[in-house]
Amino acid sequence: MKASHPAALGEALQDLDTPCLVLDREAFVRNHDRLMHSMKGLGVAVRPHAKSHKCPEIARHQIRNGAVGICCQKVSEAEAFADEGIENILVANEFFGQKKVHRYLALASRLSAIACCVDHPDQVAALSMAGEQSRIRLRLLVEIDVGQGRCGVQDLSDAVALASKIAQSPWLELAGIQGYHGSAQHFRSYSERLTAISSAADRIRTLHGELGRLGIDASWRTGGGTGSYAIEAKSGAYTEVQPGSYVFMDADYQRNQPAPDAQQPVFEHALYVAATVMSRPSIDRAVLDAGLKSFSVDSGLPVLDGPAGCTYVKASDEHGVVSTKHSSSLQLGDVLRVIPGHCDPTVNLYDHIVVMSEGRVVDVWPISARGRSC
Amino acid sequence: MKASHPAALGEALQDLDTPCLVLDREAFVRNHDRLMHSMKGLGVAVRPHAKSHKCPEIARHQIRNGAVGICCQKVSEAEAFADEGIENILVANEFFGQKKVHRYLALASRLSAIACCVDHPDQVAALSMAGEQSRIRLRLLVEIDVGQGRCGVQDLSDAVALASKIAQSPWLELAGIQGYHGSAQHFRSYSERLTAISSAADRIRTLHGELGRLGIDASWRTGGGTGSYAIEAKSGAYTEVQPGSYVFMDADYQRNQPAPDAQQPVFEHALYVAATVMSRPSIDRAVLDAGLKSFSVDSGLPVLDGPAGCTYVKASDEHGVVSTKHSSSLQLGDVLRVIPGHCDPTVNLYDHIVVMSEGRVVDVWPISARGRSC
Repeated sequence: MKASHPAALGEALQDLDTPCLVLDREAFVRNHDRLMHSMKGLGVAVRPHAKSHKCPEIARHQIRNGAVGICCQKVSEAEAFADEGIENILVANEFFGQKKVHRYLALASRLSAIACCVDHPDQVAALSMAGEQSRIRLRLLVEIDVGQGRCGVQDLSDAVALASKIAQSPWLELAGIQGYHGSAQHFRSYSERLTAISSAADRIRTLHGELGRLGIDASWRTGGGTGSYAIEAKSGAYTEVQPGSYVFMDADYQRNQPAPDAQQPVFEHALYVAATVMSRPSIDRAVLDAGLKSFSVDSGLPVLDGPAGCTYVKASDEHGVVSTKHSSSLQLGDVLRVIPGHCDPTVNLYDHIVVMSEGRVVDVWPISARGRSC
Repeated sequence: MKASHPAALGEALQDLDTPCLVLDREAFVRNHDRLMHSMKGLGVAVRPHAKSHKCPEIARHQIRNGAVGICCQKVSEAEAFADEGIENILVANEFFGQKKVHRYLALASRLSAIACCVDHPDQVAALSMAGEQSRIRLRLLVEIDVGQGRCGVQDLSDAVALASKIAQSPWLELAGIQGYHGSAQHFRSYSERLTAISSAADRIRTLHGELGRLGIDASWRTGGGTGSYAIEAKSGAYTEVQPGSYVFMDADYQRNQPAPDAQQPVFEHALYVAATVMSRPSIDRAVLDAGLKSFSVDSGLPVLDGPAGCTYVKASDEHGVVSTKHSSSLQLGDVLRVIPGHCDPTVNLYDHIVVMSEGRVVDVWPISARGRSC
């Protein structure tokens, strides 16, 4: 099961055994610095979503440099980060079932700053009973649907009822509200994103107000991703944002039009898959050793950071077909950097990320939460 | 990094911590039996492609029940199977680069029945030099492009030259020819598959004849996958077929029209992802805890093996949105079996496969070559 170490310190791109996941250290550091700079003075916390990187070293960098903690999407993912000493974790998602609740309770017994989301009375009942049995007080956020049409309570009156139910349980604490609009992250035009998130913020503001009138203080109001976080941050409704992909940027996110006022920074590609030309069967075709098991293609094919006129045109399980214009443009054995179409599920394919700086390997970080989907 | 064991013996579907990869043992056994039965009397060997399952237990079952060995697609994949005692391996693919050649040589030094493919003189030169340095004789197959337009020598005259070069090297043996038409596996109509594979077989036959006239005996002629193997097997040109997905069957393969003469068996779905309804926000929507990190969606969305009127309509990283007709059709906490759109890259997301028989867990098998893409 154990994969061999993917690279040695000092190696160059051309030396790597491929396919290999590569992080450009300087670009990654700049991306996080830009994010924090863009949040300066807003009084809104940054809690990066660790589902994008699944890597404790990256989480530690984010927390050392201004983040209040991380989001995880799954309980088993949170376990992997907790095992590496990360203490402030929001499981920004619902879960249900005896095993999941048991695993979450085990986490809550060792992490004081953990919380999770609910959107249904049965989840609240299960957590309340588990908290009582274990004598552990659990912190919950009510998630509301702010326009994505995925999880989250639909009607604000139901959300008020759910929050009241939580507030009434001696073993639960209503810590706050989550309103995340995932699909808005990828709306191409800024005005579409602005419209969607303004409406999301309105719902958050309304629910916060209604709870306040009942004496329930939902002081933690969280949401927002890489495509929209600056809008949530300036809305006045949110106290925290959850961008994840900004550390890496993928080909799909780069297709978004930036904000017109340049207040949301432009992030760089910091994540690549190194791939080798393993076949060069004709003048117009080279074949890379990286296909569907090395990239997720759900948001489009990967994009070559390579010679002009070369395009990644087709992925099969372990092959990537590249169309080429000249016989000289790619040689058998050339190692190329390829930008994934979608970072999150691509990272989830690898056990390690090879960190490079100025063209050399400077570190290898385990992707400890790889495969932690439970 | 270590994932916890995903299930205990005797558990039912409803007990599983999800998402969880599940094998229906009886359906898997029947699929392999049907394959072997369909090959009876043809004098053509079966070498299943292990890239589909990456699981040594499955490879052992195939070999105990008539397969001559396995195909792997990558050197690191072959290492994982060799570590588990599988000795007869064809790396049915090209590779290039010093590290890869070094790893392959290490494998060849311990496995007598290993071979790999080449389609370029530089690969042959590198392997010849490495063989000489290590004093290990290597067995190579010349791969030709039989219509897919991916790897493989394009012109038969170049293939003859490449085979001659191999035959002349004291450290190499020209073991045979590979001609695999990957895209033909998914041509929906049988007549399209028949036309494509008949043309592939013609090319194999022609090259075999030309090499024979030069005194080079390409006695091993291999290719074919789940969608077409019966055509290759009956062509007279091939001595071996390489079906892989037949053990599992995915939603995409099931869309192929079967052969009219029913000589190629119909395989069953034997592979599922167990997923839990983790949110039930509205009458027309349930959300599963399995999305892009639990299925590969490159060949379409997964298909529910669940209540009528429920359809998996949208995958995000860790969520699957299911449209539902009735509020009663799915409950929070229900565990469903979901059929992956494409098995191979889906299996590659999991560390274990939970084996079920008559509704109970009877075994848990490691997917030892998971992530072995180098």
